[in-house]
Amino acid sequence: MKELQPFKMSKRFENVKLISAAAAKTPHDLIPLSFGFPAKEAYDVSLMAKCSSKAIEEGGYKSFEYGGATGPSRIVKWLKKRSEIRGIYAPEENILVTTGSGQAMDILARGLTNEGDEVWVEAPTFFGALRNFTLAGLKCRGFEIDENGLKVDLVEEALVAAKNNGLPMPKFIYIMPNFHNPGGVTLSLERRMKLAKLALAYNFFIIEDDAYTELNFSERVLPAVYQFAPQRVIYMSTFSKTIAPAIRMGWLVAPPEIIMQLRSLKADGSTSVLMQEIVAAYLETIDFDDHVGNISKLYKSRLDAMIKAIDDYLGDEVTYTAPEGGFFLWLTFKEEVATSLFEELALEKGVSFILGEHCYAENEEKNHIRLCFSYCDEEMCKEAIKRIAEAYYEKYPVKKLV
Amino acid sequence: MKELQPFKMSKRFENVKLISAAAAKTPHDLIPLSFGFPAKEAYDVSLMAKCSSKAIEEGGYKSFEYGGATGPSRIVKWLKKRSEIRGIYAPEENILVTTGSGQAMDILARGLTNEGDEVWVEAPTFFGALRNFTLAGLKCRGFEIDENGLKVDLVEEALVAAKNNGLPMPKFIYIMPNFHNPGGVTLSLERRMKLAKLALAYNFFIIEDDAYTELNFSERVLPAVYQFAPQRVIYMSTFSKTIAPAIRMGWLVAPPEIIMQLRSLKADGSTSVLMQEIVAAYLETIDFDDHVGNISKLYKSRLDAMIKAIDDYLGDEVTYTAPEGGFFLWLTFKEEVATSLFEELALEKGVSFILGEHCYAENEEKNHIRLCFSYCDEEMCKEAIKRIAEAYYEKYPVKKLV
Repeated sequence: MKELQPFKMSKRFENVKLISAAAAKTPHDLIPLSFGFPAKEAYDVSLMAKCSSKAIEEGGYKSFEYGGATGPSRIVKWLKKRSEIRGIYAPEENILVTTGSGQAMDILARGLTNEGDEVWVEAPTFFGALRNFTLAGLKCRGFEIDENGLKVDLVEEALVAAKNNGLPMPKFIYIMPNFHNPGGVTLSLERRMKLAKLALAYNFFIIEDDAYTELNFSERVLPAVYQFAPQRVIYMSTFSKTIAPAIRMGWLVAPPEIIMQLRSLKADGSTSVLMQEIVAAYLETIDFDDHVGNISKLYKSRLDAMIKAIDDYLGDEVTYTAPEGGFFLWLTFKEEVATSLFEELALEKGVSFILGEHCYAENEEKNHIRLCFSYCDEEMCKEAIKRIAEAYYEKYPVKKLV
Repeated sequence: MKELQPFKMSKRFENVKLISAAAAKTPHDLIPLSFGFPAKEAYDVSLMAKCSSKAIEEGGYKSFEYGGATGPSRIVKWLKKRSEIRGIYAPEENILVTTGSGQAMDILARGLTNEGDEVWVEAPTFFGALRNFTLAGLKCRGFEIDENGLKVDLVEEALVAAKNNGLPMPKFIYIMPNFHNPGGVTLSLERRMKLAKLALAYNFFIIEDDAYTELNFSERVLPAVYQFAPQRVIYMSTFSKTIAPAIRMGWLVAPPEIIMQLRSLKADGSTSVLMQEIVAAYLETIDFDDHVGNISKLYKSRLDAMIKAIDDYLGDEVTYTAPEGGFFLWLTFKEEVATSLFEELALEKGVSFILGEHCYAENEEKNHIRLCFSYCDEEMCKEAIKRIAEAYYEKYPVKKLV
């Protein structure tokens, strides 16, 4: 028989950036600041174990079946109520439970667009969103953020210019208004209102990814952008950061006619009914405010330790906006620094992080790194920054390490 | 402010057929033969409850985290071993756990093709597959089946013709070789071998959907098509029919380089680690052979009751191939019968089924219905057929009801 010919996989893979780890051999005492993992200490294993058996026994055979057209309603009821603290007053039919927020992003990317359409994102933005949008065949265009979040003025200018010149309008803008990933910043109230107005005027959707909103270190709770244009904002969030990634559960809030169409792209049907029953029992057992209050305190003290170490070890070499919540600190070096130059050395010294350049749809900036402060304790955060500083000064001997 | 303009959703929704239920008001004693639901009696609620709390306690915080690049391995190890009874000897790196087999279908449809590509399916085929492929922008072409499954000769002729005439070749052929949904037939050994050869010779993939394989009423276990061309067959199956749909867990077996790419389309990352731990504990606790043996007996007796009722009530009006396993019986009326004509009346009488016409990519045949015999007990199956017969004779008064 003749040789087997190679098979050409989908061209959609061609433009996908891999977030490749540096090539160094990972030391045993690696401190991982790369990914947005919750703290081990934030999980209540015993309570989850108890809730699981209780929920399954009580749910009986019903919790073993397919979810039917709309899926089970316990989580949805809980979400409806919880959403109100952010000014989201949406009936149950506007809420769709998804298998993690990654799935929400995927079905929105495919449901709101056609291949080749343009979508707008923040610069920097979450690299996972870029991957989803690229796999859906979309063109991503980035808009700068500052300490008050997305520069909505730039968006307005671009909309006007696109309209006047017959250029592609965005099908949606993907934003992370609270405790931005990776930027750590929060979108100001004024900009929220203005962006919502633009969505209505220019007829695009805002995908409002609010993954970190419950992990709030400040006194300030800003209303969701959703509140200002529920017809053109799709709100999404997740339990991955507040309960556990391993339950794979997120949700979105959208007009019901859109949810009806998105359901057909949700290839797993209803998100696991059994897991929904377990999580519902868990949510109904804990005091959620207490819970997120406690873990937010934990994360805040890790952030504080990291910031102190940055000030100590990297002093004037870097700038950052201290986040008011969430998991990430965005460290900016001087413009001429390429952080990829010391990534491998840092890994050898035992610390990993995400190169900022992965967070851009276009015009990658090379002088940033994203640091996740949620997973490692204060001592580790401090030690990690020390190692990063050592690697940096070795490649950029601007001044001695303190 | 001016009126909000309508937003045009993705064109991918335009070609999706809705499996619309008939419009009649559903009576309280409806017997649902529509969907492939396992029997209530097939679930072991207490054991699942026990396994869940045990698995979570034992797994500890690790079972709360993201699954990492390759996901947890317990289920994969189990699957590797179980696959061997069908002649599938694949290393662990060839196995990907998916969130139901619907997700497997979705990522395969998008990963192996580009929009506009042609894929070939059986006629009839599973309507859920047609929906997934259509949403991926694929053109589906159907090939007849008979009592020995897909007519592979027709496929060969079409391949030759396409090659000679420069017509589109299929990127993949989607088949269900065992206890076909909806046809109930099983692909013969000879045809399995021949189809595998064609895939190698013409360089397309076979997607071998083996969802019902464990529910075998016969003595016969045929080797998977995978065995004859592991380079060009992707095998997929699910725990939905053997354990429970609500755990949302399936898997596929494919070359590792393909799995690596498919992972990026799997928008939920690793399938719920927590659920994988629970299901692994469950699988390690039960005797799986005993379990599938017992539920197969249950399903066989329901099928027998249904067949007897068909012979009694519909006699010479219909033909069918008695399935050797699975959930479905495919009932064929005379060619001039349109089953949609008595669907609503049947629903009024209290029985639902799937119109055969939904199971065709093209050239819909109107004279079939798909009956699911797994969910309802013997008495209900019998009563359902009686109601269908009544509805049929009312619309087609060919002869009196017995």
